[in-house]
Amino acid sequence: MISRTLAADLPQHVGETVRLAGWVHRRRRLKSVTFLVVRDRSGLAQVVLPPGETQAGPDLTEETVVEVVGLVTDNPSAPGGAEITRPVVSVLSGPVVAPPFDLYRPTVSATLPTILDHAPVALRHPRLRARFAVAAASVAGFRSALDARGFTEVHTPKLVGTATESGATVFGVDYFGRRAYLAQSPQMFKQALVGVFERVYEVGPVFRAEPHDTTRHLAQYTSLDAELGFVADHHDVMAVLRDVVAGMVDAVAQRAAPAVELLDAALPSVPAEIPEIHFTEAQELLARHMPDDPRGEPDLAPAHERWLSGWALRTHGSEFLFVTGYPMAKRPFYTHPDPARPGYSNSFDLLFRGLELVTGGQRLHRHSDYLAALAARGENPEPYQSYLDVFAHGMPPHGGFAIGLERWTARLLGVDNIREVTLFPRDLHRLDP
Amino acid sequence: MISRTLAADLPQHVGETVRLAGWVHRRRRLKSVTFLVVRDRSGLAQVVLPPGETQAGPDLTEETVVEVVGLVTDNPSAPGGAEITRPVVSVLSGPVVAPPFDLYRPTVSATLPTILDHAPVALRHPRLRARFAVAAASVAGFRSALDARGFTEVHTPKLVGTATESGATVFGVDYFGRRAYLAQSPQMFKQALVGVFERVYEVGPVFRAEPHDTTRHLAQYTSLDAELGFVADHHDVMAVLRDVVAGMVDAVAQRAAPAVELLDAALPSVPAEIPEIHFTEAQELLARHMPDDPRGEPDLAPAHERWLSGWALRTHGSEFLFVTGYPMAKRPFYTHPDPARPGYSNSFDLLFRGLELVTGGQRLHRHSDYLAALAARGENPEPYQSYLDVFAHGMPPHGGFAIGLERWTARLLGVDNIREVTLFPRDLHRLDP
Repeated sequence: MISRTLAADLPQHVGETVRLAGWVHRRRRLKSVTFLVVRDRSGLAQVVLPPGETQAGPDLTEETVVEVVGLVTDNPSAPGGAEITRPVVSVLSGPVVAPPFDLYRPTVSATLPTILDHAPVALRHPRLRARFAVAAASVAGFRSALDARGFTEVHTPKLVGTATESGATVFGVDYFGRRAYLAQSPQMFKQALVGVFERVYEVGPVFRAEPHDTTRHLAQYTSLDAELGFVADHHDVMAVLRDVVAGMVDAVAQRAAPAVELLDAALPSVPAEIPEIHFTEAQELLARHMPDDPRGEPDLAPAHERWLSGWALRTHGSEFLFVTGYPMAKRPFYTHPDPARPGYSNSFDLLFRGLELVTGGQRLHRHSDYLAALAARGENPEPYQSYLDVFAHGMPPHGGFAIGLERWTARLLGVDNIREVTLFPRDLHRLDP
Repeated sequence: MISRTLAADLPQHVGETVRLAGWVHRRRRLKSVTFLVVRDRSGLAQVVLPPGETQAGPDLTEETVVEVVGLVTDNPSAPGGAEITRPVVSVLSGPVVAPPFDLYRPTVSATLPTILDHAPVALRHPRLRARFAVAAASVAGFRSALDARGFTEVHTPKLVGTATESGATVFGVDYFGRRAYLAQSPQMFKQALVGVFERVYEVGPVFRAEPHDTTRHLAQYTSLDAELGFVADHHDVMAVLRDVVAGMVDAVAQRAAPAVELLDAALPSVPAEIPEIHFTEAQELLARHMPDDPRGEPDLAPAHERWLSGWALRTHGSEFLFVTGYPMAKRPFYTHPDPARPGYSNSFDLLFRGLELVTGGQRLHRHSDYLAALAARGENPEPYQSYLDVFAHGMPPHGGFAIGLERWTARLLGVDNIREVTLFPRDLHRLDP
């Protein structure tokens, strides 16, 4: 049997007999001829069935899986400039039911619930599939940027014995008759592993029992976590993050070019130095420019993040903005304070196109500082014993960050609902498929 | 501040003043001089404190985190041929307690429970740390082999609504007042995504509520899953697996060379074609050569796998052996039968150094075949509805495999207990740290 040729490679085989395989994306029966558009992982190919050709005709409904052996022929009006003529079509398997919407139309006509209910077939739509090519390329870029900087990839437990970070949004698990929890982040483990490898990253699922039904929250998402030791402060972490984001954008451009083109996605340029504003300066700017907006909270509301993003674009020409120095009160207990202004932290958020994309910062690294931080928050150190043990053995100054893959992909592609960039989302209402 | 130099790079900086950072791996106080061996992610470096030098002396116990600024000086008897003289040592942070065993001794003196109880510090031992450099390199090789072959990386749900594969070993989760389960494998999802991307892989955690306390089973492990469409049969899957294994070995050799050397690991050569034996032939061989061994079961016991591995090495010079055609009765319901011998399957195990390393095969792809397979096993199709929906829309012939990362690393390094190649193992008794 001749080896398979992908749709995208047809133009290189004009004049040859090839074997194509894929799905009937569309069948168009005209009076004198029938066109089959065959979809494979590389794209679309046109197959011309001769006039009156009835071979396998009645069975060739959309989504039928076919093999086509035929001659590659120049045709400037076909996709890619070549089509298959004199085909012999074999059916490998057929659909039992029709898709819930037409996969061959250029745009997706279905509502989000329909898409999600029928994900295994809906995701075949080229525009929906393309999003996940962008996601996969992004993750590859994340890894290669960190591999090049001496990081080690790790895999840490998703089942943990204690729910330290925020008990209300944690999933409980029956663990051999004991109570366990699904990890909300690899925070403790990645910090512990700074003590082993200095620089680590993990790509893996994290779990949040979010009781809210929003477009930004999921019960499971993919967290791109990194942590590094021997930093002077959070600026060393931000420098690595800048390079990681640049690596992700480059990887999308290089590895997912057809998807970027199909989705008409505008990839950002990542400045060599991403502009930075301290939280207190951001508050002052907001007070001047959004004076009617009530802002008692020591935090930034979504409207503030949008405004600041716009400001960074106008004044610095950057779609990215670091906001640094969030108040300690709004950050987790392991956050390192700013030595010069202890009420503020050596932490940051990275805003991208109006939204917080990444949170990170320098962490405490001394055992005594952890004990003091827990005491200051009135927390019992006992549930934190494993965490505290990490810092009993000499830990370097360190910090890190976490990028939500789905949030990143949504921002990059201008998608509003995080479910649209998740293959099989899990939320308050959805556990299936 | 001058930028940091890694220990392994010292020999390139002889005559220069550098800044080194790391942990005090060992302090040796002789009469006339004190040596500090400093450990960083790249290796070890020797620092010579002048006679009578007391700077930070009392604090420089093992595992103290230090920065050292000093002159790189030739010394053929120092590690790498260079050491640091005229040092100025600053302490970044100190240990609160001593490690549970000496991290500076060439071999690990602690028992496995001690190592696991104190993993954050125990893993700093160079021999323990090295195992995970090998694991990380293996995963990188898995991905790059598949990336080069047109696969797309995916991330699938770890929370599922039904426990289809084997109900007894599944973890239950409280999911917003409903019952959910931790996924035992991404099997359904990766098959569904063959319909979208044709070729997919996932690196992620899988969960097994294994009630047995063995050296081979964990409650969570890292599964390297791949699935591909448009295969003729399981041999196309085996060909990809062969290339993946070769890519993993190459990546370990290239990316983890210091770890391989430290552990004195013998990397296997992967034959261009891995020898293959059908299950029935294997049974006949075993009947001839292990006649006293009772074998009523239509499966291979560990002793049989060991014998067959030895046979493959003797007769084919291969540390790898494919055993194909396992009886359908011993394979999951989605397994594709051998069209020529329907009692046997188009499935395989890959044996490596005496143990089953990978399981895989061709899957059913027609909706009607799934219904028939469930009926033949007397199973109610209702809980399988989501799974069945995948095959209602035209699926190509496909197959795949799953490699347990920890099992792979253990075999590669000759480690007996899977816990020794897991950073923070989870089992019947262990949920912490």
